[in-house]
Amino acid sequence: MIPINASSIEQATARIAPYIHKTPLLTSNLLNERAQCELVFKCENLQKIGAFKMRGASNAALKLGPPEQQKGLCTHSSGNHAQAVAKIAQTLGIPAHIVMPKTAPQVKVDAVRTYGASIYFCEPTLQAREEKLKEVQDSTGATFIHPFNNWDVIEGQATCAFELIHQCKITLDAIVTPVGGGGLLAGTLLSKHYFSPTTQVFAAEPEGAQDAYLSMKAGKIVPAPEINTIADGLLTTIGEKNFEVMQQELNQVLLVTDEELIEAMKLIYQYLKIVIEPSCAAPLAAILKNEALFKGKKVGIVLSGGNIDLQVLASLF
Amino acid sequence: MIPINASSIEQATARIAPYIHKTPLLTSNLLNERAQCELVFKCENLQKIGAFKMRGASNAALKLGPPEQQKGLCTHSSGNHAQAVAKIAQTLGIPAHIVMPKTAPQVKVDAVRTYGASIYFCEPTLQAREEKLKEVQDSTGATFIHPFNNWDVIEGQATCAFELIHQCKITLDAIVTPVGGGGLLAGTLLSKHYFSPTTQVFAAEPEGAQDAYLSMKAGKIVPAPEINTIADGLLTTIGEKNFEVMQQELNQVLLVTDEELIEAMKLIYQYLKIVIEPSCAAPLAAILKNEALFKGKKVGIVLSGGNIDLQVLASLF
Repeated sequence: MIPINASSIEQATARIAPYIHKTPLLTSNLLNERAQCELVFKCENLQKIGAFKMRGASNAALKLGPPEQQKGLCTHSSGNHAQAVAKIAQTLGIPAHIVMPKTAPQVKVDAVRTYGASIYFCEPTLQAREEKLKEVQDSTGATFIHPFNNWDVIEGQATCAFELIHQCKITLDAIVTPVGGGGLLAGTLLSKHYFSPTTQVFAAEPEGAQDAYLSMKAGKIVPAPEINTIADGLLTTIGEKNFEVMQQELNQVLLVTDEELIEAMKLIYQYLKIVIEPSCAAPLAAILKNEALFKGKKVGIVLSGGNIDLQVLASLF
Repeated sequence: MIPINASSIEQATARIAPYIHKTPLLTSNLLNERAQCELVFKCENLQKIGAFKMRGASNAALKLGPPEQQKGLCTHSSGNHAQAVAKIAQTLGIPAHIVMPKTAPQVKVDAVRTYGASIYFCEPTLQAREEKLKEVQDSTGATFIHPFNNWDVIEGQATCAFELIHQCKITLDAIVTPVGGGGLLAGTLLSKHYFSPTTQVFAAEPEGAQDAYLSMKAGKIVPAPEINTIADGLLTTIGEKNFEVMQQELNQVLLVTDEELIEAMKLIYQYLKIVIEPSCAAPLAAILKNEALFKGKKVGIVLSGGNIDLQVLASLF
């Protein structure tokens, strides 16, 4: 049973409204010509903390009762979810405890520290991460907010497509999102189901982290045989809850190479004038690669985030 | 006599509305902390053709009568104004003739060509440029739209601050714009005069192109003694019409170095997640440099444009 419906998505939208930006839509005629379809970009790179993750973390934190909130939040992540949990905790004036691999880039550690969270370093393995998190939970009583395999997080991410659907003056033929753990994708699928049922939803995934693609094919969760992509936001294997929604609603997973990602990234910088991280370029790359699938259609793209180290950026261009 | 007033700015706003984007405002708490004031960014880098120039060129073109429109538009520019004239001409289905120095970067030539304009190359001197333009005007009958020293262009640029003032829910204590030829600045000053008279307006200018600074000091237009800055949008000397408005309304010109420009540019990429060109970073650089002047105030910044070659971008970071 998926505990999310039209009314709960509307409530989540109202709940998190004071804590997030209602992000703008951007369009570009030149990109439309290039892609042979009508593209609408939902700019979650312009969201607080620079990524859609602010929505899910805020929704999960705000749904806790006051006694739970006071004990604080915890999570393990080296990415945008860590910043989101730290930021909403700071705003609510409650503690945040973030477990990060000791190999995490300094820029990400600094970002989490900016929001006043306590950081706990661990070895860069899943086991070490989970053990350290358990330790932190036991000693603090903080509530664990999983980055994606959590219904409140998924409900929060659903508010992004909810906004997109309502901001568009037209009915979208398709929406394309990137897929990592599947939080944004599952949320998008649920909002499509309840608010724009004729819209098709596609997921874009790097070839070098193709667990969603293989899992949809196999009908069960299958990890990627190897992880090798610049899309550092899409490395994780999809969660069970996320997969449940994907099996019911998802049209197709479209794979893209890193070269295609970089090419799409450049187009977005050049034509939309916005900063995105590599993961975020996957949907446009997938659309350009599958012209026949999208030709002449109205297509929404969720731009998931813009957190990229400027030196990394310089090295890609 | 300045032929622009409250009503003409409102009319210009309505006139160009179908041809431009109403660009969003962005804010960042972290940038506010850094600058010690409350910043609101008006994102003209997200404008059509990637710069505010679309406003002035559109207003000037739309104010022509049909017979004049049919003969087409012409201008000399290697920058954003050339793209703006080409774009509005394309939209109106009329010819555009653009004189460019033969040393113009290929990326800018390509951009103008994308919009279907005819390009005429000349030697990279002011004299050669004006002679070639005269030739083109004589043979085509096209109307010359000056990049900044033109009241219709200034009136069009005024719509940017007009929008900013009305989009803000607060009265701004100050607005800061970059200054090159002075089109955006003069337009901003006029909108401030008519719609937000308590707001102070400052211009930010690179030390390596300090004609506005010297001119305000001297009480007459003085060219910069040398031109040496990465802010390629701010190289021109201010126009007479622009200077007339500046003398009546401008608070102060604030100078910034190229190092300060690059530092401010990085902050905007990092915190606002948007692509800007170096010229566009001048206002933030000036605010960071003059903390006492802006401390605790509500400050609007016009982000003028986002047209930068990705390789140049990579070389700066």
